[in-house]
Parts: sequence; C-alpha cells; structure tokens
Amino acid sequence: MKKLLLTACCLISLSSFGQKLLFGVAYYDEYMPYERLDKDIAMMKAAHINVVRIAESTWATEEPSDSVYNFTHIDRVLDAMHKAGISVIVGTPTYAVPAWLAKKYPDVLAATPWGQNQFGPRQNMDITNPHYRYYAERIIRKILEHVKDHPAIIGYQVDNETKAYNTAGPNVQKAFVEYLKKKFVTLDSVNNAFGLNYWSNRVSAWDDFPSVNGSVNASVKAEFAKFQRGLVTEFLAWQAKIVREYKRPEQFITQNFDLSWKGYSYGIQDEVDHFAAARALDIAGVDIYHPSQHQLTGTEISLGGDLARSMKGGKNYLVMETEAQGFANWTPYPGQLRLQAFSHLAGGADMVSYWHWASIHNSAETYWKGLLSHDFAPNPTYNEAITIGADFERLSPNLLHLHKKNEAAIFFSNEANTAYNSWGTPEKYNDVMRPFYDALYRMNIGVDFIDPSSDNFDQYKLIVVPALYAASDALLQRLNQYVENGGHIVYTFKSGFSNENVQVRYTPQPGVINAVTGNYYNEFVVPEHVGLKNDPFGAKDNEIKYWMELLTPTTAKVLAYYDHAQWGNYAAVTRNQYGKGTATYIGFMPGNILCEKIMENCAKEAGIDHQLHFPLITKTGTNTAGHTIHYLFNYSDTSQTLIYPYETGKELLSGKTVLQKSSLVLAPWDVKIIENN
Amino acid sequence: MKKLLLTACCLISLSSFGQKLLFGVAYYDEYMPYERLDKDIAMMKAAHINVVRIAESTWATEEPSDSVYNFTHIDRVLDAMHKAGISVIVGTPTYAVPAWLAKKYPDVLAATPWGQNQFGPRQNMDITNPHYRYYAERIIRKILEHVKDHPAIIGYQVDNETKAYNTAGPNVQKAFVEYLKKKFVTLDSVNNAFGLNYWSNRVSAWDDFPSVNGSVNASVKAEFAKFQRGLVTEFLAWQAKIVREYKRPEQFITQNFDLSWKGYSYGIQDEVDHFAAARALDIAGVDIYHPSQHQLTGTEISLGGDLARSMKGGKNYLVMETEAQGFANWTPYPGQLRLQAFSHLAGGADMVSYWHWASIHNSAETYWKGLLSHDFAPNPTYNEAITIGADFERLSPNLLHLHKKNEAAIFFSNEANTAYNSWGTPEKYNDVMRPFYDALYRMNIGVDFIDPSSDNFDQYKLIVVPALYAASDALLQRLNQYVENGGHIVYTFKSGFSNENVQVRYTPQPGVINAVTGNYYNEFVVPEHVGLKNDPFGAKDNEIKYWMELLTPTTAKVLAYYDHAQWGNYAAVTRNQYGKGTATYIGFMPGNILCEKIMENCAKEAGIDHQLHFPLITKTGTNTAGHTIHYLFNYSDTSQTLIYPYETGKELLSGKTVLQKSSLVLAPWDVKIIENN
Amino acid sequence: MKKLLLTACCLISLSSFGQKLLFGVAYYDEYMPYERLDKDIAMMKAAHINVVRIAESTWATEEPSDSVYNFTHIDRVLDAMHKAGISVIVGTPTYAVPAWLAKKYPDVLAATPWGQNQFGPRQNMDITNPHYRYYAERIIRKILEHVKDHPAIIGYQVDNETKAYNTAGPNVQKAFVEYLKKKFVTLDSVNNAFGLNYWSNRVSAWDDFPSVNGSVNASVKAEFAKFQRGLVTEFLAWQAKIVREYKRPEQFITQNFDLSWKGYSYGIQDEVDHFAAARALDIAGVDIYHPSQHQLTGTEISLGGDLARSMKGGKNYLVMETEAQGFANWTPYPGQLRLQAFSHLAGGADMVSYWHWASIHNSAETYWKGLLSHDFAPNPTYNEAITIGADFERLSPNLLHLHKKNEAAIFFSNEANTAYNSWGTPEKYNDVMRPFYDALYRMNIGVDFIDPSSDNFDQYKLIVVPALYAASDALLQRLNQYVENGGHIVYTFKSGFSNENVQVRYTPQPGVINAVTGNYYNEFVVPEHVGLKNDPFGAKDNEIKYWMELLTPTTAKVLAYYDHAQWGNYAAVTRNQYGKGTATYIGFMPGNILCEKIMENCAKEAGIDHQLHFPLITKTGTNTAGHTIHYLFNYSDTSQTLIYPYETGKELLSGKTVLQKSSLVLAPWDVKIIENN
Repeated sequence: MKKLLLTACCLISLSSFGQKLLFGVAYYDEYMPYERLDKDIAMMKAAHINVVRIAESTWATEEPSDSVYNFTHIDRVLDAMHKAGISVIVGTPTYAVPAWLAKKYPDVLAATPWGQNQFGPRQNMDITNPHYRYYAERIIRKILEHVKDHPAIIGYQVDNETKAYNTAGPNVQKAFVEYLKKKFVTLDSVNNAFGLNYWSNRVSAWDDFPSVNGSVNASVKAEFAKFQRGLVTEFLAWQAKIVREYKRPEQFITQNFDLSWKGYSYGIQDEVDHFAAARALDIAGVDIYHPSQHQLTGTEISLGGDLARSMKGGKNYLVMETEAQGFANWTPYPGQLRLQAFSHLAGGADMVSYWHWASIHNSAETYWKGLLSHDFAPNPTYNEAITIGADFERLSPNLLHLHKKNEAAIFFSNEANTAYNSWGTPEKYNDVMRPFYDALYRMNIGVDFIDPSSDNFDQYKLIVVPALYAASDALLQRLNQYVENGGHIVYTFKSGFSNENVQVRYTPQPGVINAVTGNYYNEFVVPEHVGLKNDPFGAKDNEIKYWMELLTPTTAKVLAYYDHAQWGNYAAVTRNQYGKGTATYIGFMPGNILCEKIMENCAKEAGIDHQLHFPLITKTGTNTAGHTIHYLFNYSDTSQTLIYPYETGKELLSGKTVLQKSSLVLAPWDVKIIENN
Repeated sequence: MKKLLLTACCLISLSSFGQKLLFGVAYYDEYMPYERLDKDIAMMKAAHINVVRIAESTWATEEPSDSVYNFTHIDRVLDAMHKAGISVIVGTPTYAVPAWLAKKYPDVLAATPWGQNQFGPRQNMDITNPHYRYYAERIIRKILEHVKDHPAIIGYQVDNETKAYNTAGPNVQKAFVEYLKKKFVTLDSVNNAFGLNYWSNRVSAWDDFPSVNGSVNASVKAEFAKFQRGLVTEFLAWQAKIVREYKRPEQFITQNFDLSWKGYSYGIQDEVDHFAAARALDIAGVDIYHPSQHQLTGTEISLGGDLARSMKGGKNYLVMETEAQGFANWTPYPGQLRLQAFSHLAGGADMVSYWHWASIHNSAETYWKGLLSHDFAPNPTYNEAITIGADFERLSPNLLHLHKKNEAAIFFSNEANTAYNSWGTPEKYNDVMRPFYDALYRMNIGVDFIDPSSDNFDQYKLIVVPALYAASDALLQRLNQYVENGGHIVYTFKSGFSNENVQVRYTPQPGVINAVTGNYYNEFVVPEHVGLKNDPFGAKDNEIKYWMELLTPTTAKVLAYYDHAQWGNYAAVTRNQYGKGTATYIGFMPGNILCEKIMENCAKEAGIDHQLHFPLITKTGTNTAGHTIHYLFNYSDTSQTLIYPYETGKELLSGKTVLQKSSLVLAPWDVKIIENN
Repeated sequence: MKKLLLTACCLISLSSFGQKLLFGVAYYDEYMPYERLDKDIAMMKAAHINVVRIAESTWATEEPSDSVYNFTHIDRVLDAMHKAGISVIVGTPTYAVPAWLAKKYPDVLAATPWGQNQFGPRQNMDITNPHYRYYAERIIRKILEHVKDHPAIIGYQVDNETKAYNTAGPNVQKAFVEYLKKKFVTLDSVNNAFGLNYWSNRVSAWDDFPSVNGSVNASVKAEFAKFQRGLVTEFLAWQAKIVREYKRPEQFITQNFDLSWKGYSYGIQDEVDHFAAARALDIAGVDIYHPSQHQLTGTEISLGGDLARSMKGGKNYLVMETEAQGFANWTPYPGQLRLQAFSHLAGGADMVSYWHWASIHNSAETYWKGLLSHDFAPNPTYNEAITIGADFERLSPNLLHLHKKNEAAIFFSNEANTAYNSWGTPEKYNDVMRPFYDALYRMNIGVDFIDPSSDNFDQYKLIVVPALYAASDALLQRLNQYVENGGHIVYTFKSGFSNENVQVRYTPQPGVINAVTGNYYNEFVVPEHVGLKNDPFGAKDNEIKYWMELLTPTTAKVLAYYDHAQWGNYAAVTRNQYGKGTATYIGFMPGNILCEKIMENCAKEAGIDHQLHFPLITKTGTNTAGHTIHYLFNYSDTSQTLIYPYETGKELLSGKTVLQKSSLVLAPWDVKIIENN
C-alpha cells in the first residue's frame, strides 16, 4: 500500500525549482575513473535524487588551453540528467584556475602577507587581478552561452566558497588606499581614527601609506579585513550580474557560502559579509559540515540553517553541501543520515545536497567520502539515503517552503568578529557566540541571525548580543532604542568596547549602551578559579572563563556577584529596566551549563516559551498550506520518551495520529514530523 | 596632625633631579583622543606625580614628512608640566621610524635571518644603516636644539629598549667580517678558534666568509651575537655623545634597559651587554614588568633593581617603566601597587615611573593599561597611586639614595648566556640563573650582579656562578684567584665547559676551575628520576633536573652523591678548600627547594647572616643621613606576624617606634619601613 | 692462560677486508684541537681497533680554494694507520660543500619548497646541479688519484647519508617533467593516472606542468618523491662508477645508509630506495643510533641490521656508524656497549664502527660524543670498548660472516611509505611497521626485509605486510601467488588501498588482494574506545588505534569482531585459506600487546618456532665453519635465568660448555655466545 503511494508520488512531475524538495549531490563526471554516467544515474534515481550540482571546480577541463573549450562533460551530464528527470545546478568554475593561466599570468596567484601563492590548491588567486577577471569572465560567458537554453538547468552557483584569500599585494594595497581616501577623505581623519600617532605610524602622504601586511595596528587591520570582505561582495555581484545576462527567469542564482571552520562548520565567517554578499543572489546557499557519530548534536545543522535563512531575510535556502559519509570520523551511525536530512528541512532548507556523489580516487579529498565509497557499490549510507529520498519525494507537499517565525535573534557583527579576534585572546568571537547559540538550541528556542544591516530588531522579544567589540555609536543607539521600545537584550562582556574604527571608547564602559545596561566598569581581569556567589541561577556549576569585567551597577539590579576574595563586591551579571524593555549584561564568559541557566532566566524575562530539551530537539514552522509542522528529533544513542506537548496532529512518516499530551517514544537518532491542521 | 605634616612636606621645593624621589609616568599627549592636558596634569598633581617621560615613540609626529618638523606636542607638554612643577625626561624617538623614511630608504628596515622586516612595528630597523643613522641624528639634533633650554627637563633617555633586532643583512655581515679580521687577524686563527674544519666550513678567503644566517657553528653564532651586542653598545654611545653636546650639566642621560622577556621581565638580556652599554650613560634606567595578583612575589622587582644598580657599580637607578594596571592578569589587588612601589625603593631606585599614564585607545597595546583606564576616570589603582605619591613626597628625605652593600653576588656572563642557550636544551641560561637568584631572594640575602668586566670580586663573601658555559682561561683564573684570596664560590654544572670561543675545553672538566673545585668529570647524562642519596641538605625534595655531571673528587669532599643504580658512586655536589676560600660545585640543576637548601648551606659556609623568609621579604640599606633603613614586605594574601629582628627604630609610614624583638604584624601585601638612627 | 691465547691470536695477520671482524671508529684528524695522531693511535691499538673511516666530511680542508688541494690530513692518517696495522675506509667528501663553491655557484645550494638553502649545514646541495657535479667529480678523482695505491685502504665510502635533500628548483622540476614524459608518454596518461581533473589541475601542455612545490595532489607528490629517490640512486651509482675506476680489486665500495629518524634510527627511510641504491655498492653500510640506558632494547640494532643485510640479499654488512657515548641520554650503562656490539654481530654485521673516536670541540655536534670525551682521557665507555675489541679479535674466526636464514619477512615499500605518510594521519608508515617488527623481535622470530623488487617471497613461511597503501595490481598478484603457493601472509589495514599512482582503487577493498583475504569493506572509521569482542587472542588489552575498517567476510573466517555498539557485527581480523596458504587481514592498528598476540597466532599458523622472550633476546646463524651460533642477550637491568633451549655447545666468551636444557643465568645487560658443532 505504502509502496503504491510512493510509486504514484514519483510520477508527479516536479520539474522546476520551488515546487518540490530538492535532494541532491555534487557530481563530477570529470573525476570518474571509468565511464559511470548511466550507472550513476540509475543509482541516483533509486535514491530519489532529483538534482545535481556540476562544473564548479573544473575550469581546466572546460578550457584545457587558452581559448580552447571543451564542454563534453557538461553536455553529457546535462543531457543524461535531463533524460532522467534530474535537475542540474551549474557552477561557474572560477574558484580554481587552470595551470596555463597561472603560467601565463603569474600575478593571477594572490600575493599574501606570507608570500605569493603557488599553483596547486584552489582558492589561491587574487580575485581583483585584471587578468584573472578577464579570463574568469570569458569562461563564464562561454559556458553560459553554451548551456543557457538547456532545460535541465534550474539555477546557477556563482563561484564557490568565495573569499579574498588574504590577497594583499601592491595592487590590493593601492585599492585599499583609494578606499581609505574615499571613506576618510583626509589623512588626518585616518590618523585620528586609527590612532596612527602610536609607535610613529602617522602617515602624512597617501603615497607613504605602508602595506597593511606589517601593521600592528588593530584599527588598520580591521579596516583592511572589512575592505577584503567588500572585495568578496563586489566579486560575487560582478559574477551574478554576468550570469543574470544569460539565465532564464525561472532560474536562480546562488552561492555556496561556508561558515568559519574549526574542523567543521563552526560560526560566523569573518572573511565574508554574508548578508551583503547574499544581496546579489536570488537564494542563499550554504555548506554545513558537522561532527557525527556520538558527537552528533544537530547544532551546526541548526546554526548553518539559521544563518542561511537569515541571509535573505527569512527565505528558504539551499544546503548546497553537507556530508554523506564524509571523513572517517563522520561516517554516520545507522539513522543519523535521516536525522540530519530532516533537521535541515526543519531549519527551512528546500534542498539537501551531499558533497558528494562518489568518493574521489586521487589528489586531496580522497578521505572526504561521498554517498558512495570508492567502489561505487551500495553501502549503508547510500541505502539510508534511498529512504530519505523517498520520504522527501512523498512529503514534499507538506514540508516544502517551511516558514519560520522566531521570537529570539542572535545579533552578530563582522566588524566585531574581526576586532575581537585580533585583540590577543586565544578564544575567538565564535567561541563567545557559539555557547549562547548552543544554549538556546538545547532549550529549543528558535533563533534568527541579525546584523548591523538588519532593520527588524523590533520583531524579536529577545536579542542576544555576544561580544559586540566594535560598533558605531549609531548602531549602539539603535540597540538602545530596541530596548526602549520594549525589547529584551542580552549583552556579553566586551560589548560596546570600541567604536567602528576599533578605537576603544574613552567614555565609561560599556560605551554608549551603558545608558541601557545601567552599569559601568573601568577595570577587567582574567578569571582564575572564580565563580558566582551563591549560585544565583541554580546552575551549580558556575564556571567563569576568558574575561571578567568588574561591574558596578548604576541603575541596574545585580543578578550575580563574583565569588572572589578581592573582587567579590563587583557585579558579574546585571539587569536594567530601560523604557519598556530590559537589558541583561554578563560581564564574563560563562561555562556552558551556567550559560544555559542564564539564558533560561533571560528567555523567561522576555516571555519566550520553550518545550522539551536536548537531546530532544524540536523545530516548528508553517507549511505552504498554512499548517504547523513540528519536527521532533532524538539526538542521542538511547530511546527517549516524551509527552507530546503540541496540538494533536498527524505524524507524516508513519501516517499515525499523535494526540496532544500523549506519550511518544523516539528511537535513538529518530525523527518524527507532526502536521497540525 | 598627619595631614598638616603632609601639607608642610609638599611645600618643600624639590625641583631638580637627585634631590627627591621621583614618582612618574610615561605621557603621550600625541595619543590622546581629545584635549586632555590640563585635566591630566590636575590628576597627576593629585597623585603627587613629579616627573613624566615623553617623546620617545613618536618620530612621525615630530617629523611628519622628510625635514618637516612639528614639536607642538613636546612644547605644550613641557610648558604645561613646568607650570605645574612636574619635571620631564625627554626621549629620543629613534626606536620607531616614520613611514616616509621606510618608504624612501627601504634598507632602513633590518634584513634578518628570516627576511627583511616590514614597516609597522617599532624596533624593526637596522641600527647600523647609514640612512637610518643620518635621519636619526638629524631628528635628535633638531629636538635637542629645540628643547635644550627648557627648564622642565631633568634628563634625556636615548632611544628605548635598544637591541640589534637580529639585523644580519649583507652590510652587517661585511662589518662582522671586518670585526673578525681585526680580532683574529688571520683566517687560520678563525678557522681554528671556531673549528671550521667541521663539516667543510673552513674558509680560505675573507671574501668567502659565509653569512652567519645559515651557520650551524655554535662558535660563529656566539661571536656574531657578541658582535651584535657590540652594535648596541656603539649605538647608544653614539646617541649619548650627540645628546651630550646639548644637555645642561645638571641633566642626565639614561636608557630604558629591559631584561630578557618571558611574558614578564625574567633574566639577563642576551641581546645587550648592559654593563658595557651603560658606560655611556649617567644613570641606569630599567623597565620591570612582573606577574601580579596571587602570583606577585617581588622577585622580578628585586632582580631588575639589582641588575640596574649593578650596571653603574652600585649607583641608584631609575625604574623607567613598570606596570600600573598592566595586562588584565596584572591588575593589582588592593595594596599591591604600594607594596611594589616601596619594593623598588628598597632595591635602590630613585624613581618609580609607570608605563603609563592612560590606557591607549588604538593599535597594539590597548590592553597594557596605564594608571588610568580608557575612560580617564579615577579607579582603584589610581587611587592607590595617590597614597604612594604622598608617601614618596613625605618620606623622600629618608628614602632617597638608598645605599646598598651586599655580601653576595651573582656572576653572570653574556657570552655564557648566548653559548648556553645555543647548545640545544629547552631550558635556557636564565632558567639556571633564576632559581639561584630566587633562592637567595626568598632567604633575604641581598645580591649584586657582577660580570667579566667587574673588578670587585673580593668585596663579596659569596659569589654564585650559574652555568658559566663559555669563559676564557684568564677569567677562570681570576675566579680561582678570588677563592684563593678567601672567597666562597658556588659553581653549577656546565661552568668552565668551553672557552671564550665556545670551543669545548680538551683539558679535564670543569676546565681551568677544577684546580679550585677539586673534582673532574668526562661523562654527563640526562637525569631521569634521580635524586640525592640520603637527603644531604635536608631538603626532603631532592629533585635533579636538566643535566647531571658524573663527578669524581680529587681533593674535594663530597657533599652529595647521586641516588642512582648505575651512577650512585659519582659525586653530585663537592666542596673544596683552596687557598683561603672554598669552592662548591653542583653538577646538576636542583629543583627549587633543593636549590634553596644548598644555597643555605653555602651561605652558612660563607658566613652570611640572613633574617626572616619569604613571604616576609626584608631589604636593607643606608640613607643619605647615614641611617639604616629596613624595609619589611609581606608578599602574601595572609597576615604575617614576626619578631622584628633589627635594632629599634621608627616605622616611617606610621611614625611609630618599633622595638627590637617586638612582635610585628604585617597585613596582606603590607609594607613597613623602619629607620634606625 | 687466557692472556696467552689472546696474544697468540693477535699475532695472526688479518690484513685485508673479509678476513676478520672489523672494530672501528670514524676519525677526524682535521677536527683535533692539538696534535693527537700518535697518542690516538696508541689508544686505538689498546682497544684493538683495526679500522678507521676518514675524510668524508672535510672537502674544504682537502680543497681549501678552487683547485688548490691539501691532502695532508689524509696522507698522515693513512701512513700512521698503516704503520699501526689499522685499516682505513676513505670517504668521498661530497656531502658537505666548501664555502668557496657555494659562493662561486650559489645554485649549488638546493632550492627547496621552503626556499633556497643557505651555506652552513651539510647536505644542503642540489645533487643534480651541474656545477656541483663538476666539482664533486673533480675532488673525488683528485683524492682517489692521490690515495689509490695506499696499502692501508680497504674500501671506500661514497658520499654519506645521501638523500635528495628536498631539492625542487626549476631544473629539478624540468627533469621531473622529462621523467614523466618518458614514463607516461602522453599528458592524458598523466592526467588520468594522477586525477588532475580535480580542482582544475589538468595540464594540457608539458610546458605548463606546474611546480610540485604547490601541489595538493597526493599522486603527483608521491611520483615526485619516487623521482627524488631515483636521484639518490643515480647519484650514488655515478659516484661508485667513478671510484670503481680507481679502486683495487680487493677494495670495496659502500655507503653509510641511514634509517628514518625519530630522535634515533626508527624505520624505513622514505627518502632513499635502499635496495635500488645498494645495487651500485659492493657491500651495504648503515648507521644505527638507538635509545640507551633503561630504554635500551636492542630493537633498532636488530632492525637496522636486518635492513642492511637485506639490502644486498642477505650478505653481511658494515655498521658504519653507531653510538659510543652519543648524546647525554645515551651514555651507556656498564655492560651495554658490549651488549650492543655483539648484538650487531648477531644480525650479520662484519664491522662495528663508532661515530666517532673523540668528541668534537666546536660547532654542531659537541654533544654527540665519541668513544673519548672532550678530554681524550680513558673513560668507562672507552674502557669497555677495550674488552669488546679484544673479544672481537679473539673470536673473529668464530663470529665473522654469520650466515642468517629467517623464516619470516617484513614486506615494505617505499611507495607505500610515501603514500601512507601523505594522507593526513599523524601516525606514519613506520608507526604501523614498527610495532609488527617489534612484536616479532620480542618473540625472537628473526626476520628479513623484502620489497617489491624482491623475487624470493617463497623462501618465507610468513610475510608480514604493513600498510601496503600503494601497490600495482601486478605486485598484489605476486603476493596473492605467494599465498596460493603455500605462504602465510599478514596484511594490515590500508593494504591494497591504492594503485602505484596512489589512485584509490575503485574495485572492492582491499583491492586485488581480496581474492586472497576473502573479505571486503567500503566503510572505515576512526576508532574511539573500541576493542575486540571476547578477547579473541587472549591479549587482555585489546587496544585498537589509528584506523578501523568495517570488514565483511566473503570466504574468510572471522578471528575477531569489533566491540562496538554500532559496528559490532563487522569483522576486525579475518583469516582465509587460499590455495595452499592462508591470509590474515587485520583491519586496524593493534596496540603493542595485542599486536604481539596476533603475531603469535600468525606465527603458529605459519609453523614458525620461537624460543624465549624479551628481555631475553636470542639470535641465530651459521658461521664460516658451518657451525650454528646462538647469541643470548639480556636486555634488562635484572639477572635472568633461563633453560638453555638449544643443543649443547661452547660458550665462546667464557669457554665453558653449555648443556641443552641446563639452567643459564645472564647478568644484567649480559651476552652469551654458544657455538654448536
């Protein structure tokens, strides 16, 4: 019976993007050690794969010599996929230049602070180099001209995981000085903003402006990092503009944005301004890689999804890449691949695409395995993907275009990220941000990400602001206004500390926001064996890390004091009523347990409800029919029993009705999806 | 009553150097984010600050373009300080070159073994470069010409924390070869002295002499290090000579010497020959930075002071820089800033000057905080400084020009330092020297530092010689003579091992000094789980580290044997009578507890008395009135009760009489100063 | 009586190589700080030293300027040694170039991926550089012409510890491309074999072939490493050819091969193809350095000997260098130097030569001590050498030319070594090989080494194949054939994984050998807290490290399953009957205890007998008289009692008869040598 339904479902034609859940893989015909195309497509069809991404890494195959083109691989894959009813996303191949180009114009390879890049790896070019731009534009146009009418193509990916790759040669330096001229107009402004009198760094002629490579000035380096992020934004917009000349109206343009990397997708990417760069795109794409096996928590899936969704203001997004088997320590346990796939959907993804179809037999990523191992035979991971593909196909009408509405947001800032990371502590911006994100995740409080370009602060009951190290007065005043309007804000230590030029404020700290936080400090220390007095949040474990500001309340009430012989009279956490809202200020980095307890307190203050707790993860949204969808995930190795807290609905995978308040059992690494009418 | 006295004291005019204790800060008008001068001076006056150091880091402000001068900041500070009765030390700005100079003459930036330096940080230049010298001389003369008559100036600092900064380009190499020619005359002498036959390094033409940068020859590298130290000596003498053309007779010339750095001032500086370099100066200056909070022991204050005092043969010295708030992990506990200030005086300092007045808002040292935080508001550290300034002012007649006379000395050697550090062990020369220094410190045995240029060996009852790895026969014979004359010497392992060319001696070890030590060895091993047999010094913890020489006594008596299955018949510590004195030889590096016990034994042998023990530190000297001053410090977090061991006197801070043998209580981090008539 | 015998023995003239055990030292007259030759020779004679190696490091002394020659040191040493009846091995001095050559032709210094080498250390040259070759050939010919008739010389060492020293400049790159052309003929073959389509690395013109320095392609890098090993083979053959023009028929040509280094001689040298390079030589030479004192196990002596012996197909070899005192942590305990010397003989060495005679007084190796310390006086190590020399001389007829015949072999591969080391794990090829070697050593199972060039597989009952990561189909089929013929083979994880081009196989894993292993896998994971189910080998400690292949048997029986909640149904160790033999496959890296237990199981399966166990080590061979020699070693600090398991024979050191099954006591670090008639 179920089988029949499935078969029927498969016959429904979901030919264009936006009408079905996409289940895909990256596919490299160029890398195959022998003729595989038909066999691969048959295996894809068996797994209900309905989209592949191609061509983004293989410029040298597509243009083997200067102005000699060979689109054989593209053509045969497009034709074969189309024949099989599988859609294709075509990537521009510009993030990996061919050897002949690097030989002809060695300056195509970026000059970095550590010397000029060598040919070999990808992402080694100067994205501002005119020769690079000339040849990149030419290959893009050649490919687009060639494929633009192909019916298999549903969209384009411009470049891949684009960054400025530390390009910092003389031409980039020159452009940076031009940028400074435009932004600051006079050298006096630059000297003052950046404090260049320090250590004889004052510059009196634009021509003398020294390379940033040797700079020790945090303001200069932060401005250069911002300039480099601007190069990425400009580069992607430039590519998107070219592609837009060719693409059909129903086709989309996306990119494959990646998060900052710590062996896996970890946090805010400090080399790209995702919100700005995404403006030139139609839809956000993201790659998400995460720990697995007993370390699988779903956090990075949730985080990457929340970020990608927030890039385009809450619109659904594409998971351009995520792990199938991945590294040896990522090979999923039985059930985990399913759990992961539906977790992506629960964040608002309309596509889940694995990197990649089949494991590679040469070069650098032979241990980053695809759905298939090197032997191309079915394996437990592939076999599990078959069930996912079938469920995606069957449940597409129910699960596509999940609309999310969250009451909480994390406020991040690229400027703060760069500035925080440069002041010398071993822990970085994301090490402050993540524990707050993770605490909310464990408590099942859904979040969006917002940044200084966002104009929707007021839609959130709670905004959490980690380590807003660098920010303009105007921005801080906007955040003050949010509180005055009735919002609840949570600041951590270091917020408001310096202005947009990474000039430490000389007004009382925390600068500008202290009107709202109702406290001040001018001394800070490094905590050693310090806790909170009298366990004020009931955390039992009151670990304090990284930093410790010696807070004195003005109008705020003190939620917690430090437990320290010398500094026990200073406040550690304060809360202040301001206008219609409140501001909580945390003068230190809490350990994970304490962090969650503080966030629980703040969520309650902000009036945010939440149900269940990790390892039971629940995500909610509204589908296109206007029905509420509740995802329930068991992120653990043991069965979990829960009282189903939401309204009665239908569990979509099993087709069974789930009554409110009934007892539900989730097997290890299990998922349930309940639709309420 | 006390208040009245204070006021009276303040009215005494102490206008010129040498007549009052100096309490100061480094002051950078150039770095201020807004007009602060009058307000800053008012706050300085409130803290009884009577001296500021200016101008040493800001060449680019003083000469913003080639031959364009702007002394506004210098002038306004000099005038304002003078008006306020605050003295000024003017620094030459040569340790940080302007961008225009580095652009005009890129060779100004030193070529090091790791490539050419970039513009950005300070201390990146080739101090031998003719362009650098030309422009450095010109800015020095311009400034001096401009300020020489200003009444506020009490002295000049030439350059700052000067070193050779690893300069090793072709011009330096050429100069080094000229130096070798002059020193060794023939290449045969060089080949033999340095053992250049080894690995085909023999040189047969001066023009072929290869760059030291690639050398693996310890002798060559040590000679080059000595040559580089010579560059520093020459450079400072050159600057001092220029300044001396302008300065008034009552003004002094100093430098700000720094110790070797290990996150704080740690030991002998191997890049500068302090004793040689100080000859061109009128008074020694030093910067001393040290751990704080629960890690504050006073050791580095004592060490830096003993070194600085010894640079000019026991004369009082200036603490040009020390921490106020400093790093976040240095923010002082209540009371510690006072304790530190008086500890400096107890070593013979005539000035204590903080780096720096106010925390910096940009660039690289925003977390190296001054007396004021970034908000310029009073804070606990500043408030404590107020009490120090008041006491300095009031007690200046009693405490100025403390004359110290110690019975013990540490013999150090720059040559040994370099040579020891290059032979491949992870622990360095200072890691051997410090535990011996620290042991004497904890036992309240005051020490001077002496080096191969010293001619006053005989004034000490005890000379401790750590790791004298490289030394000429003549030097060792002078040390032998010291013992023969009645001195007691303590040698550690590795002493006498190689000659002045870092050629290991082929005579029995320890070379030349074995006449005096009465022992020999020709095998050495690395200790693993070895102790001393039968706990000979009552240390209980007989930890042996780093190295282990298998000693055999000839005429010496054995104080300790190794506790080892195979090498238990070898001596570990020997003592030998020689002439009127004795020599103790320690064949290994003792752990800290054992080290102190051995030094206690040696002090007793040398007839040196000592009172109290860490955390109770006591320092003694004679003031200008010829009275003995006893400082008592409590370097701990708990109250300490002691029986006052010295003659009856007056405690200067409280004005109370302290009777000999009476019980005294020192609060945590407290200080008492007793003057005996 | 014994004395008389000794004297008699010493009178036997053993003047030419091959007729006596050689006991030697490296001797550097050039390095002596004063005239020592006669005194040194007297001390050598006292120690029965009968050979010295000279001249291999001192080109700059021999040719102090371009075409100026000075063979004084060579001549006087040759003459003096000859007079004393001590033989000489002359080394060509080419591994350390003189300063004048590096100055004249800077390109003599190799350009490496990290920049061009500097003058200073040895082994810094480009061994392919034409200038280097010209001057190297000239000095070789000059020396050979000069000494060729000298009667003291028994052989020549060409160069020293030769490698390619990472030479990778444009000329080397060019030669590499020529090599590729010859090997692969077409670029298409290269592109396919190396998978260059990946990341746009495809090359379409030979001129575009990019430098390997920047490559991320494991296949390219492995091929380049193989090419570099080929440079070493060619270079040594080139030198040997030159020397062969001069040498007399009875003289030999050797080299001083070194193992891979991990603070001591550790494993297979991945920079040299020892088997190929040794073909140009008459006899294999090796240097062996090893931990000592309580860490002395004899393993490296055994390993280095087995490797050296295997280089020339089982022929006796020369230990060109081994430690006398060595580093401070190597200074031998009493008895250890003797134990070591006889351990070398037990492996088949005909010479044991110390590096070096006397400790060096300058430069880089002053802490790598010789038989004599820096003082040239007798010391415990030298005194022990006297007894060794005497015993060598006395027992030479019994112990020379030991013939070894082992039943087991370790199969290693330079290609697998390189390939394994490049795939990203922290543990390396030798970290897999060594524990298997060490287990066999501890069990007293003698082994030979074989590699892909060996044609004698069938002579072994057991072949152990660690991590044969890269291998051609043909090689794997030869190994399959070995099993079919009746051999027993043991494969570890990763064997057969990729082909000779480091292309991962797309056939089921383990590729090609799975016909024989009777299992397959296509998933692998990183073990965390995994063991083996039910302790199948009785190891108690079932530690699993590094890697974990999820094996499924086809025809094999399962010897062990993983003890893991998710993967407990996968096999960990399998054994398969194939033809007349069996194949054991280990899907993971066992801990040392488990490794030995598995090897015990495999030895039993292969029908290999073994006696005693570490610390009692026994080695066996046949002497020239056809008698069996049993060495018994006690590698421990405590006396060991054993039942002598072999036939009755005479213990050569004591002259006493040892009866089969009698009880024998070996003192700590003791050796006994029993000859059976």
